[in-house]
Amino acid sequence: MALRTALMIAPLGADETTDDLAATFTTVDPAAPALTVGELSTQRGDGIFESIGVVDGHPQEVEAHLERLAHSAQLCDLPAPNLEQWRGAVLTVAAECGPGESVIKLILSRGVEHGPSPTAWATAASAADFSRVRTDGIRVVTLDRGYSIDAPASAPWLLLGAKTLSYAVNMAALREAHRRGADDAVFTSSDGYVLEAPTATLILRRGDTFVTPAPNGGILHGTTQLSLFEHLADRGFTTVYETIPVADLRTADAAWLVSSVRLAAPITELDGAALTVDAEFTASLNDYLLSPRD
Amino acid sequence: MALRTALMIAPLGADETTDDLAATFTTVDPAAPALTVGELSTQRGDGIFESIGVVDGHPQEVEAHLERLAHSAQLCDLPAPNLEQWRGAVLTVAAECGPGESVIKLILSRGVEHGPSPTAWATAASAADFSRVRTDGIRVVTLDRGYSIDAPASAPWLLLGAKTLSYAVNMAALREAHRRGADDAVFTSSDGYVLEAPTATLILRRGDTFVTPAPNGGILHGTTQLSLFEHLADRGFTTVYETIPVADLRTADAAWLVSSVRLAAPITELDGAALTVDAEFTASLNDYLLSPRD
Repeated sequence: MALRTALMIAPLGADETTDDLAATFTTVDPAAPALTVGELSTQRGDGIFESIGVVDGHPQEVEAHLERLAHSAQLCDLPAPNLEQWRGAVLTVAAECGPGESVIKLILSRGVEHGPSPTAWATAASAADFSRVRTDGIRVVTLDRGYSIDAPASAPWLLLGAKTLSYAVNMAALREAHRRGADDAVFTSSDGYVLEAPTATLILRRGDTFVTPAPNGGILHGTTQLSLFEHLADRGFTTVYETIPVADLRTADAAWLVSSVRLAAPITELDGAALTVDAEFTASLNDYLLSPRD
Repeated sequence: MALRTALMIAPLGADETTDDLAATFTTVDPAAPALTVGELSTQRGDGIFESIGVVDGHPQEVEAHLERLAHSAQLCDLPAPNLEQWRGAVLTVAAECGPGESVIKLILSRGVEHGPSPTAWATAASAADFSRVRTDGIRVVTLDRGYSIDAPASAPWLLLGAKTLSYAVNMAALREAHRRGADDAVFTSSDGYVLEAPTATLILRRGDTFVTPAPNGGILHGTTQLSLFEHLADRGFTTVYETIPVADLRTADAAWLVSSVRLAAPITELDGAALTVDAEFTASLNDYLLSPRD
């Protein structure tokens, strides 16, 4: 969907305060040029981002997204974001969102090459209509991410726990999945463990236990997965983080890819093998995810 | 260095011809906004690039760069670039370069999200002064790239042979090298082979033989390395592509990182071990690289 709102942000220092937060924001026409060609986000994919779901004007799980933005900044040696300022930016663009589902993106770029400071902006757009995907589900193929499960711990410069703008591989994996007749992919480690989807987190069900890959493999800690695990625990289910061998995918009772905007998409087929979808249960998850969450 | 010239390019189809190539170019102020925030180059690092050295207004090895641009486009499922148009763009910005050394960047982005076509542009800037680095040399550390040597062949979605805009890891590796008191890095595969530097190609000398890692490890085929190998062959040396174990780095008689703009930087220290620099020979390589090359 085309962007509806765009807000350029003059980044404050992490501890800087201001009486006039709005003065650090400049509304720009999302269809008009706003960035220079020297931007390192564009030349080097050098920056970080967050995508926040918005339901009827309410931005979901803002604090979890801001915490992850700060974590990504640390991993990438970017100046610590001023979270009060980013919170203000989220609320400002959320106010333009209106009814229905929207998506807010926060982007913090290293700035212009040799420039003095990062470039930052927030956008809002209507979300695509994912209602059918949430009920009909998705076909998924596994794709090798090339890294062993322990690579991220010993090689932090691979930035595997950071949500960087360098998403060309994630986008290529989605194209490869489509080429194979699937809707999405799940990355696996080179030594045979389950990681994450290019833009979502995997959750498996085994009886009354819900399992997601432990973030020690350098995968992103999914904000939607975190929220859903809290919800499942409240409903009396057990939730666990595990190092999951690829073979375990075939023995799961059910599986979902969860993300901030598409929410819970049940997996109907994994590498060609059918998976059962509990339509009623999946609907209950998406009902929760569509309710206002902080 | 600040950008001096920027040219937005309205991309032609690969086989499209026009009587007025200049009409497909728009000169823009490099310090003024030219890109929208919806650009996939900036949101996803989703695009490809080339950096071309320019000496006294002469762009070096243009055809090799254009060929690699086309190769990267293919690996990334981008529309094949119209090479005549890109050649025209290079000549147009090169004409603004004047005496001394400059750098031209070509960028082909997937375009605006859900937009109809790629976004493309070319820039020129004065090059940094690398004359001291070319004589005094650089200290280099090896850093694990996380992939095994055979990952790229079995997982093309890792885009390892493409020069994409998703360079956050390359930039992080350079920061890690600086943190370790070095000037640059050489990536190694997880199974112990030598790959490439974040923005350069490694060449080793063993007696009268010059060796560079075989591009089968998914590394970029360096345009400067290619040109230098031709030159070395003309001078009677042997040039070979090899799968090089990391241990071989220590037994090399000399080593260089070569790239389009910094040219041949002799390695003085590799993971803390001193390497001999033949100043005169290195100067002869840079003399060649600074001569007009097509």
